[in-house]
Amino acid sequence: MRRYSVFLLLLLGLLVLLPATTMAADPSGAGNPIDLEGAMNSIDYVWVLVCAFLVFFMQAGFAMVEAGMVRVKNVANVLMKNFMDFAIGTIAFLVIGYSLLMGSDVGGMFGDPSSNFMLFGESYDVGNMLLWFFMLVFAATSVTIVSGAIAERPKFKTYLIYSAVVTALIYPIYGHWIWGGGWLAASDLMVNLGGGYGALDFAGSGVVHALGGLLALAACIVIGPRIGKYTKEGKPLPIPGHNMTIVMLGGFILWFGWFGFNAGSTLSGNQLIIAKICVTTVIAGAVGAVTAVLLSWRRAGTPDLGLAVNGMLGGLVGITAGCAWVEPWAAMVIGVVSGIIVCYGVWFLEKKGVDDVVGAISVHGFNGLWGLIALGLFADGTFGVYTVDGPLVTGLLYGNAGFFVAQMINVVVLAIYALGTGFALFYGLKKTVGIRVSPEEELQGLDISEHNVSAYPEMVTKDVAMTQEAVK
Amino acid sequence: MRRYSVFLLLLLGLLVLLPATTMAADPSGAGNPIDLEGAMNSIDYVWVLVCAFLVFFMQAGFAMVEAGMVRVKNVANVLMKNFMDFAIGTIAFLVIGYSLLMGSDVGGMFGDPSSNFMLFGESYDVGNMLLWFFMLVFAATSVTIVSGAIAERPKFKTYLIYSAVVTALIYPIYGHWIWGGGWLAASDLMVNLGGGYGALDFAGSGVVHALGGLLALAACIVIGPRIGKYTKEGKPLPIPGHNMTIVMLGGFILWFGWFGFNAGSTLSGNQLIIAKICVTTVIAGAVGAVTAVLLSWRRAGTPDLGLAVNGMLGGLVGITAGCAWVEPWAAMVIGVVSGIIVCYGVWFLEKKGVDDVVGAISVHGFNGLWGLIALGLFADGTFGVYTVDGPLVTGLLYGNAGFFVAQMINVVVLAIYALGTGFALFYGLKKTVGIRVSPEEELQGLDISEHNVSAYPEMVTKDVAMTQEAVK
Amino acid sequence: MRRYSVFLLLLLGLLVLLPATTMAADPSGAGNPIDLEGAMNSIDYVWVLVCAFLVFFMQAGFAMVEAGMVRVKNVANVLMKNFMDFAIGTIAFLVIGYSLLMGSDVGGMFGDPSSNFMLFGESYDVGNMLLWFFMLVFAATSVTIVSGAIAERPKFKTYLIYSAVVTALIYPIYGHWIWGGGWLAASDLMVNLGGGYGALDFAGSGVVHALGGLLALAACIVIGPRIGKYTKEGKPLPIPGHNMTIVMLGGFILWFGWFGFNAGSTLSGNQLIIAKICVTTVIAGAVGAVTAVLLSWRRAGTPDLGLAVNGMLGGLVGITAGCAWVEPWAAMVIGVVSGIIVCYGVWFLEKKGVDDVVGAISVHGFNGLWGLIALGLFADGTFGVYTVDGPLVTGLLYGNAGFFVAQMINVVVLAIYALGTGFALFYGLKKTVGIRVSPEEELQGLDISEHNVSAYPEMVTKDVAMTQEAVK
Repeated sequence: MRRYSVFLLLLLGLLVLLPATTMAADPSGAGNPIDLEGAMNSIDYVWVLVCAFLVFFMQAGFAMVEAGMVRVKNVANVLMKNFMDFAIGTIAFLVIGYSLLMGSDVGGMFGDPSSNFMLFGESYDVGNMLLWFFMLVFAATSVTIVSGAIAERPKFKTYLIYSAVVTALIYPIYGHWIWGGGWLAASDLMVNLGGGYGALDFAGSGVVHALGGLLALAACIVIGPRIGKYTKEGKPLPIPGHNMTIVMLGGFILWFGWFGFNAGSTLSGNQLIIAKICVTTVIAGAVGAVTAVLLSWRRAGTPDLGLAVNGMLGGLVGITAGCAWVEPWAAMVIGVVSGIIVCYGVWFLEKKGVDDVVGAISVHGFNGLWGLIALGLFADGTFGVYTVDGPLVTGLLYGNAGFFVAQMINVVVLAIYALGTGFALFYGLKKTVGIRVSPEEELQGLDISEHNVSAYPEMVTKDVAMTQEAVK
Repeated sequence: MRRYSVFLLLLLGLLVLLPATTMAADPSGAGNPIDLEGAMNSIDYVWVLVCAFLVFFMQAGFAMVEAGMVRVKNVANVLMKNFMDFAIGTIAFLVIGYSLLMGSDVGGMFGDPSSNFMLFGESYDVGNMLLWFFMLVFAATSVTIVSGAIAERPKFKTYLIYSAVVTALIYPIYGHWIWGGGWLAASDLMVNLGGGYGALDFAGSGVVHALGGLLALAACIVIGPRIGKYTKEGKPLPIPGHNMTIVMLGGFILWFGWFGFNAGSTLSGNQLIIAKICVTTVIAGAVGAVTAVLLSWRRAGTPDLGLAVNGMLGGLVGITAGCAWVEPWAAMVIGVVSGIIVCYGVWFLEKKGVDDVVGAISVHGFNGLWGLIALGLFADGTFGVYTVDGPLVTGLLYGNAGFFVAQMINVVVLAIYALGTGFALFYGLKKTVGIRVSPEEELQGLDISEHNVSAYPEMVTKDVAMTQEAVK
Repeated sequence: MRRYSVFLLLLLGLLVLLPATTMAADPSGAGNPIDLEGAMNSIDYVWVLVCAFLVFFMQAGFAMVEAGMVRVKNVANVLMKNFMDFAIGTIAFLVIGYSLLMGSDVGGMFGDPSSNFMLFGESYDVGNMLLWFFMLVFAATSVTIVSGAIAERPKFKTYLIYSAVVTALIYPIYGHWIWGGGWLAASDLMVNLGGGYGALDFAGSGVVHALGGLLALAACIVIGPRIGKYTKEGKPLPIPGHNMTIVMLGGFILWFGWFGFNAGSTLSGNQLIIAKICVTTVIAGAVGAVTAVLLSWRRAGTPDLGLAVNGMLGGLVGITAGCAWVEPWAAMVIGVVSGIIVCYGVWFLEKKGVDDVVGAISVHGFNGLWGLIALGLFADGTFGVYTVDGPLVTGLLYGNAGFFVAQMINVVVLAIYALGTGFALFYGLKKTVGIRVSPEEELQGLDISEHNVSAYPEMVTKDVAMTQEAVK
C-alpha cells in the first residue's frame, strides 16, 4: 500500500515542476467587452453555469436512486461508486478526456489529445473552461449509469478503472463524433450516406444515455446476475430495494437536474428556445411516468413505484436528443413510447437473465436510442442546428427522409461502438484485475467486504432475499 | 385492465393524427432581437426558468416532508401520490388547465378553454411556453398540498382523479380571477366594492397555498380521521411520523425552492426587487420557525421539530402574497403571526377531530389567508402592481383602507370557493368511486394494499401506534 | 415558560411601533436604468441570488452530513440545531450582524452597528438587500460548522445562544476585517507589515471555514469527548454514524452549493472568471476526495466513505480562498494537500482526545487556514483584487513574497481571534448556562431528553456503541 504515497508524492512533484506561468488566451475574463455583446456573453455564462450545477447535482440523484434500489448490505458501496466515479472522472477529463472530446478535430475521429492537457496554455481561457465544466458534468452522467446496473457484485477497484477509462477514452471519442465536429455530425461520408445530413443529438440521448446504458448492458452480461436473482430453473426472483423514499428523492433530483441538462445544452441563455426545451422535457417525463404506471398497474394489479420513477427517467432520456426540435404533442408521444420501452425492456431483460438492478439498460440504453430515432421522426423544422439561425431540422413526419436516415446510421454506429468497447473493456477487466467479488463477499455484502462499513449500523435488519430463498 | 392499452393506443393515435404543422407565433425564439431589449428579454427567461426549476424541486420537498410524517406502512403510497399528481397534473394543465388560467379572459370568469390546447397554433410560442412552465410548477404546488393532509387513508385512484380535477379546473379558475385578468383583480365590481382596488397576490399565498390548504380542510373533513387517531372519548392520540431526517430535508428543500417561488413571480430578472423579495422571504420563514419553536417549547416543555418546520413553512406562506410589497420589519411581524397561526391552528384542528397528518391546513390554508390580509395591512407603497412602474400598492397601516377591503373580499371569496369546490369534489368522489380504503387495508398500510410494496423491506419495524392503542 | 409569550408580544409591539415610513435609497429597484448598465446590473442580481440560493441549500447539506454521522438517538437534535441556528442567525444578522460586517468602517475594526438595523432607512435598498442576503447565507454556513463537531452532547439552549452570538458578533467582526474594509484587508499597518499588501480571501476559506472550524476546536476542547468515545486508557473507539446514505447526500448537496459559494463571490455575473472558479472548485473537491480515499485505503485496507466525503469537503475549503486566483494545476495540488490535511487532522485530533464527530475541525479549520496559505503561494497574477480590473494578485511561487506575508499574518490573526473568542465564549457558557447535558441525558440520547421525540420511532435499533462498550 506504500505505492499510494509514492503516487501522491509523484503527483505533487510533477505538478509543481510544471511551467507555472502559462501562455493563456483569457484566463480572467478581462476580454469581455462592456457593451451589448459583453452583456449577452455574461448571460450565456450565467445560464450555462447554473445548468451545469444542476447537471452536477444529478450525481446525487443517481446515487440516491441506486442506493435505494439495492439491499442494505450494499448501500455504502453503491454510494462510494457514484461518488468516486465523479472524482476520478474529473481528473481523467482534465488530463485527457476533454481534449479528445473537444480538441481540434483529428480526421473526424477525436480531438487533439494534448490540446487541453490540464487546461494549460491556450486552453487556460474562461470560455474554454466554461465548456470544460459543462462537458465534465455530462461525461460524469454517462459514466455513472453503469454503477447502478451492475450493483451488488463488482469489485470496487475495477469499477474505478472502468470509470477512468470511460471518462478518459470511450465517452470522449464517441462524443467527439457528434459534438466535437467528428464524422457522424459533419463528414462527406455522412452527407452521402444520410441523404445530405449529419447526425444530431441536442443534449445527449445518444452521447450520454445510450452510450452509458449500452455499456451497462455489456457490463451486466459480462458480470452475470447476482446470486439469488434466479432460481435453478432460471426463473427471476424479485430482489426489492431497501429504501423507496430515497429512490423517489433521487428521481426528483434527476428530473430537477434534467432541466439544466436539456435547456443548458443551448450553451446560451440568449436562445429563448430554452423555454420550449423545458416544456418538452417536463411533458415527456410526466407522460413517461404515467405510461409506465399504467402498464405496471395492468400487469401486476397495482401501480409500481420503481417503474413510475423509471418511466419518468425513460421519458426524459427519450426527449433529450430532440428537446429543442420537437413540439409538445410530439414530446407526449415520445413519452408514451419511452414508458412502454422502459416497462417491456425491464421485463424482457429480466427474463433473459440480464440482471440490471436499477433498470438502467432500458431507461438509458434503449430509450437513448429511441430518443435519436424520435428526433429523426418528429423534428418540426422550426429550430436550426443547435442555434436559432442554423439550418432548420426537419424529421421524417415532416417529409424529410434524409435526416432520418442519418439518425438511424447514428443509432447503428452507436450501438456497435458502445457494445464493442463495452464488451472489450469489461471482458478485459474480467480477465485481468477481475470484475466480480467472491461469492462469499457478495453474500456478506460489499459494504463489509469492500469498505468495512455498515450503512445503517444501528438498524436491525432482516434479509428479505434470504427469506425468498427459504420460500423457494 | 385491457382498457389501459386501449387508452394508450387511442392517445398515440390521436396525437399522431393531429396537425403536425401548426400555426405558430415564435416557437424557436428567433424573434429575440440582438439589442438591449433582446438582452433584457434573455435575462427574464434565464431568471424565470431557474426559479421555475426551484419551484419544481419543491415537489421533492413536499414528498420528503409528507413521507417523513407518515408511518412506515404508508410511505410508498405518499411518495407515489406526490409523484403522480405532478405527472398527471402536467397532462391536465397541457390539455385544459393553462387555457382556463391564462387564456384570453371570458367575462372575468376564466380563460378561453381552447386557447392553449396542447400548446398548438398561436400558443406554440417561446414566451407563452415560458409562462406555461412557470404556471405549471405553481399549479402542481397547490395540488400536492392535499396529499399530506389526508395521508394514510385515501384510495390511490381517487387521489389521481382529485389531482386531475384540481389542476384542470379548480385551481385555474380561481387563479384566473387573480392572475389571469379575472374579476377579483380587475373588474368594475371589485373597484366599486373594494374602494377603488382589485385584489393582489404576488406569488400566491391565496392562489396556491390557501386554495390548496382549504381543499385539504374539506378533504380531511369528508374522509374522516385515521383509525387510532382518536380514543373512543374523542381524545387525540399522537401518531408520530417515521423519519424526522427526511422531514427536515424536505423542509430545507421547500425553503430553497421558495426563493424561486417568490422572487420568480416578478416574471423578470430585470426587476431588482427580486433582492428584497428574498430578504422578506427568508425573514418570515426564520421568524415563523422561531415563533413556533418557542410556542411548542412553552406548551410541551421541549422544542418540537415538526412545529419548527411547519412554523417556517407557515412564515413562508404568510409572506408569499406580500413579499414584494412589505418591509423587512413587516416580514418579521408576518412571520410571528404565521408561527402563532400554525401552532394554534394545528392544536385546534386536532382537538376538533380534523386529522391533518402534516399540518397542511394550518400551514397553507390559514396562513394563506393571513398572507392576503397581511398584504392589505403592510404594503408600504414603494413598489407597484407586479412591476416597478405599476401603480403603487399601499396597505391599511399606511392609510389605505380601500386596498385592504379588496384583500378582505378576496379572502372571503377564496374561502367560499375553496371550501365549496372542495366539499363538492370530495363528497362527489366519496359517493361515486369512493374516497377511502377499507379499514383492513388502512390497518395493513397503503403500501401493501395499494402498491404491493414495502418502502423499507429489510428494516425490522415495530408498530408504534399499535403500542399506543395497547397502552390506551 | 410564560416569558415566551411576553417575548412575542414585546417583539410584535416593538415592531409595530417602529416608523412605518422609512427613508429609503431604492427599495423597489426603480433606479435600475433601461440601458446597458441596467442590463448588466440585472445580470449581477440574477447571478448573486441564484448563487445565494445554492449557499442557502448548503444548510441542508450540513444537516444531512451531521445527522448521518451521529447515532440514532441524537438525530433530531442535530437536525434542530442545524435548522434553528439559521433561523436565529437570520434575526441576529438583521438586528446587528450585518451592520458590524458591512456597515461603514469604524477604525478598521467593525462596521457602524446601527447602519443597517432591521434594514431601515438608507439600508432599505435593493442593492444593499442583495448583499445582505448573500452575506447572511455565508454567515450561516460558518455558524453551522460547530454543530456537527460537538454533536451528541451539548445543551440545545446553549447552542442557540452560541449561534446568536457568533452570527451577531464574532463572525461579523472578523469578516469586517477582510471583507468590510477592515484592517486586515486595507490598512497602513498591513501594508507595512505585509510588504505592501492586504490580506485576501475570495470566498471565505478563512472568514467562513477556518473561523467556524477553529470555533469548533475550542468548543470540542471545552465540552470534552462523548461518553464511550475513549477507553479508560484513552484509546479512541469508533462511534459509527447511523446513516451513510444521507451523509453522502449531504456531501453532494454541499458540493452543489459550493459552486454558488465560490463563483457567487464575484458578486457579479459579468465577471467571466466565474467559469474558471467552477473549474478550480470542482478539481480541488475531486482531488481532495481521491487523496483522502487513497490514504484511508492505505491505512485501513479499505476505502472509507466518511473520509471520501470529508476529503472532498476539505478540498473545497482549501480552494475557497484562492478559487479565482489559481490555475487548475494548482487547484489539484491544493486538493492533494487538503486531502492529506483532512486525514491526518482527523487521526491526530482523535488520538489527542478531541472528539469531533464529523471531522469539522480538520475539514473547515485546518483546511481553511491552508486555503489562505495556498492563495499566498499559487495566485498566478492573471486576475485582480476581486474584479477583473483590480490590481493583479500574485503569490510566492510567482515571485511575490509580500502578499504571502500578508496571508500568513492573516492566518496567525485569524487563529488567535477564532480560538480566543471561541474559548472565551464556550468557557463563559459552560460557567453560566452550562454547555453539556447530564451523563444520563447523554446516554439516553438528546432526542428524548431535549426534544421528547424519536427520529425513527418505528425502527427497531440496536445500540452499537453499547456493544462496543460490552466488548471493551
